Amino acid sequence: MITRAEAEQARRRAAAMLREAGIVLTPQEVATIEIAELGLGDLERQGLALVTYVNTDRYCAKELVLFPHQTCPQHRHPPVDGRPGKQETFRCRRGRVYLYVAGEPTPRPRCRPPAGSASAYTVWHEIALAPGEQYTIPPDTWHWFQAGDEGAVVSEFSSTSTDEHDVFMDPRIVRTPALAD
Amino acid sequence: MITRAEAEQARRRAAAMLREAGIVLTPQEVATIEIAELGLGDLERQGLALVTYVNTDRYCAKELVLFPHQTCPQHRHPPVDGRPGKQETFRCRRGRVYLYVAGEPTPRPRCRPPAGSASAYTVWHEIALAPGEQYTIPPDTWHWFQAGDEGAVVSEFSSTSTDEHDVFMDPRIVRTPALAD
Repeated sequence: MITRAEAEQARRRAAAMLREAGIVLTPQEVATIEIAELGLGDLERQGLALVTYVNTDRYCAKELVLFPHQTCPQHRHPPVDGRPGKQETFRCRRGRVYLYVAGEPTPRPRCRPPAGSASAYTVWHEIALAPGEQYTIPPDTWHWFQAGDEGAVVSEFSSTSTDEHDVFMDPRIVRTPALAD
Repeated sequence: MITRAEAEQARRRAAAMLREAGIVLTPQEVATIEIAELGLGDLERQGLALVTYVNTDRYCAKELVLFPHQTCPQHRHPPVDGRPGKQETFRCRRGRVYLYVAGEPTPRPRCRPPAGSASAYTVWHEIALAPGEQYTIPPDTWHWFQAGDEGAVVSEFSSTSTDEHDVFMDPRIVRTPALAD
């Protein structure tokens, strides 16, 4: 768990990174940047910040912000209500993001799992994305990602998001935990 | 119809506007920016440039570039193969874009139709979008849009695009005409 003050600080930091990437947000969007700390209380290393532009019953678009070396832990998007799981395209806008998906393990991967969490990271096919590069993850595929030295701003284009159905590998994770006062 | 040289010049101009908006493209993307002149041979005033990042059977994401005062003519996205027409969200990234949709006509609209085409413009409910502002257009709704003095860069998030099914109001329009040599 993190405090409201810590969440607010993370929000300001993410807003500055988006601004540096040339992405303009409304004041209302800045004030409601989602800080996903996932109940781990380790936001500097695990979690991410999100701006959801639109999420209809047909498509969704977000910006994701990762601090330097911050990791979004391994998860998948299972089928929901008879529809295939969420399909998503990550497009790197600034910084570097290293994406790991199911498939042939990359011999010398650039990233390591957060300390103490190695057992929750089982897919090691690495896709390195620089600004302007993108990759589409099929539905229900295990994946995780970590930012490089400068952090990363990543646009996500996808089918409908239903975050509450995401399945995380690490059993300690809660997708939308409460904040401490 | 425009010539290949004119299309290439428009591509370079659109690429520069995207760069100024902080949007990074790969060289391959720059080389394949779509110049939609719509068979009107009047690209300075009618048409637009597009970069399609992804278009799956579930969602689509594009960047649209409009030169100053350039108009994307009135059209709608009808149902296709039993699915509702394309739903799309326009998010202004740079410049200004004036969107006109079916609904209560705005008393003093900011834009005029391209000269000689007034009869192909019948919807006058105006939505002005500055950077960071966005609007979602329901399926099968007549709409058109025009850029302000500095042109516009607009992100489009949507359900699947099937441009060949778009219905334009102006009967002279061809969505994907050939280029002249």
